[in-house]
Amino acid sequence: MKRRIFLSGAAAAGATVAASALPKPALAQKKVEAVMVTTWPRDFPGLGTGAQRLAKRINDATDGKIKITYYAAGEKVGAFASFDEVASGKAQIYHAADYYWKGKHPAWAYFTSVPFGLTFTEINAWIQWGGGQQLWDKVAGEFGLKCVRAGSTGVQMGGWFRKEINSADDLKGLKMRIPGLGGDVMAKLGASPVSLPGGQIYENLVSGAIDATEWVGPWNDKFMKFYEAASYYYYPGMHEPGAMLSLGMNGSWWGKLSKNDQTIIEGLATAENDIMMAEFDAKSGQALKELVRDHGVKLRQFNDDVYDAFGKGAEAVFEATRAHSKLAKDVDDSFRAARADLGAWTQISVQAYLSQRNRVLGL
Amino acid sequence: MKRRIFLSGAAAAGATVAASALPKPALAQKKVEAVMVTTWPRDFPGLGTGAQRLAKRINDATDGKIKITYYAAGEKVGAFASFDEVASGKAQIYHAADYYWKGKHPAWAYFTSVPFGLTFTEINAWIQWGGGQQLWDKVAGEFGLKCVRAGSTGVQMGGWFRKEINSADDLKGLKMRIPGLGGDVMAKLGASPVSLPGGQIYENLVSGAIDATEWVGPWNDKFMKFYEAASYYYYPGMHEPGAMLSLGMNGSWWGKLSKNDQTIIEGLATAENDIMMAEFDAKSGQALKELVRDHGVKLRQFNDDVYDAFGKGAEAVFEATRAHSKLAKDVDDSFRAARADLGAWTQISVQAYLSQRNRVLGL
Repeated sequence: MKRRIFLSGAAAAGATVAASALPKPALAQKKVEAVMVTTWPRDFPGLGTGAQRLAKRINDATDGKIKITYYAAGEKVGAFASFDEVASGKAQIYHAADYYWKGKHPAWAYFTSVPFGLTFTEINAWIQWGGGQQLWDKVAGEFGLKCVRAGSTGVQMGGWFRKEINSADDLKGLKMRIPGLGGDVMAKLGASPVSLPGGQIYENLVSGAIDATEWVGPWNDKFMKFYEAASYYYYPGMHEPGAMLSLGMNGSWWGKLSKNDQTIIEGLATAENDIMMAEFDAKSGQALKELVRDHGVKLRQFNDDVYDAFGKGAEAVFEATRAHSKLAKDVDDSFRAARADLGAWTQISVQAYLSQRNRVLGL
Repeated sequence: MKRRIFLSGAAAAGATVAASALPKPALAQKKVEAVMVTTWPRDFPGLGTGAQRLAKRINDATDGKIKITYYAAGEKVGAFASFDEVASGKAQIYHAADYYWKGKHPAWAYFTSVPFGLTFTEINAWIQWGGGQQLWDKVAGEFGLKCVRAGSTGVQMGGWFRKEINSADDLKGLKMRIPGLGGDVMAKLGASPVSLPGGQIYENLVSGAIDATEWVGPWNDKFMKFYEAASYYYYPGMHEPGAMLSLGMNGSWWGKLSKNDQTIIEGLATAENDIMMAEFDAKSGQALKELVRDHGVKLRQFNDDVYDAFGKGAEAVFEATRAHSKLAKDVDDSFRAARADLGAWTQISVQAYLSQRNRVLGL
């Protein structure tokens, strides 16, 4: 047991202390304390509120036996310092999107979402039953971490545009706020992707400094009021078809937890995976209706020409990842095999069913 | 506290006993014992194994503090006696599909799946965030039960047919094994729905006593070898687009649990919802490939003419439910509102994305 882990950080975070000096009854258990840092502002709808709910539910489920102290981004460390804080053992847990760490290893991106990647149910199937968790453990293990799934935004929208996009040519020269691999795909198509933090997007869109932006989906986007500057709202997004969130834990700390504490933490994280996805879907349905009805938003679908170009761009992006290392190639191989099998199945199940039901009902 | 609950049933099931006569330390907690009955044969892939996994995980998470003794169908009571066993307090928990109880109240069907109903992510959104759980609580409360979601089969296949179905007329006179509301829809179209337990379907299909059957999806169906007697495998099923499983609990027992015990049970049930769905998807993708490659199965899609007829038949089925009672109408109203909002959203997110991704990749 590395004492330094337990003596650094706030309030002896992570300390495992005996519950009582009295004779130990059969059911008394050791108390566990942990500091949780995140990449989300406090009360940020969906991502922040979901992470807070998960921390509270772990406390509630154990009657405080596992005590998690939650810090939103900036309250203990900045959002992107969460990784080092937990890898070093100064905090024990983060809640984040693991593609934020792709600069440390490109394979991290696959455990959030990649262009032309997996939907919510597909990535769950890959992670839980298709070898995905084992590969995630390998990538995380290289940094002393253990990660489990803990939420999802679902399929994200393609973004807000000031003009209609009728062909791939219309994307050339477009200045668009779209970070990560999605931005890399747009660059292959001749657009100029830019990264901007959430708080600066609106002003850049209003001033014309950028022509377009993506954010998340109807629920989160409505708060940002992008419709005041760009009225065309395109779907479906190719860049994040199901952004899975991660509960990342210091591997040494995780390894010393009892089997039952591990089951509670992993179980409630998996429950939050389900609950957060449900919240994004429920509130996106409502928000979409309001955006169109109350704010004159013009919903548009990317056509086949645009999607064919996205597809070519995405392949080029994966090549760079595959060239990085054997582990990155292994992850990409596993992802591709899962996408082929699961895609063939979701095509004749969810996709075919929704297509017929929504057609017949006129939805 | 009703003593009779605790003194009936096997091994004083459900008894809440003090953990120890020693002075009570802060972390010692009362032991909870429960009997769980189910509607699934032992080790039945997906449904049975999922229920068994959930029972084990609750035991594991609490280090035996909550001790669940699991009985598969027929081991303590028959499958369909599970409801009365738990409602009466002889057992504390069941794992089942709540539409089995629609003879007791037609609204139960909505909390598993109805024709033209909600997909996995849609029903989660309705239950968790759209008022569905509150209505489920009302229906369950009429029988002294409390239910939470605990698994899903996902979209089911349309079924196995001995001949091609090219129009709604081809369904007339067809003898098809399809129980429940799906069978009622088929009857409206002139087919003759029959109910048969799983173990008798194959022989009836081989002998020609029935012309067609539905079961679940590629994973479960492969074991049944229906392809030996009916080579046309139709999709998508309209009758169960996302069969949600239920962890049903005796309401009086549930109400006396501590807040943390409730959080653990509900949390791990929600996790199982996610895990079981992932298993059905992962294994259906694999099984579908094998059915087509190794067993000459001919995949066919129901065309628009057939689906239009299904749609008309389904509406007629709902009318009878709405006429039953105010509660049944309230549930149907809430379901319809959720389906409209969620359908508009899933159409431009999951449905539109899968359609483009799978087209571009040639899946």
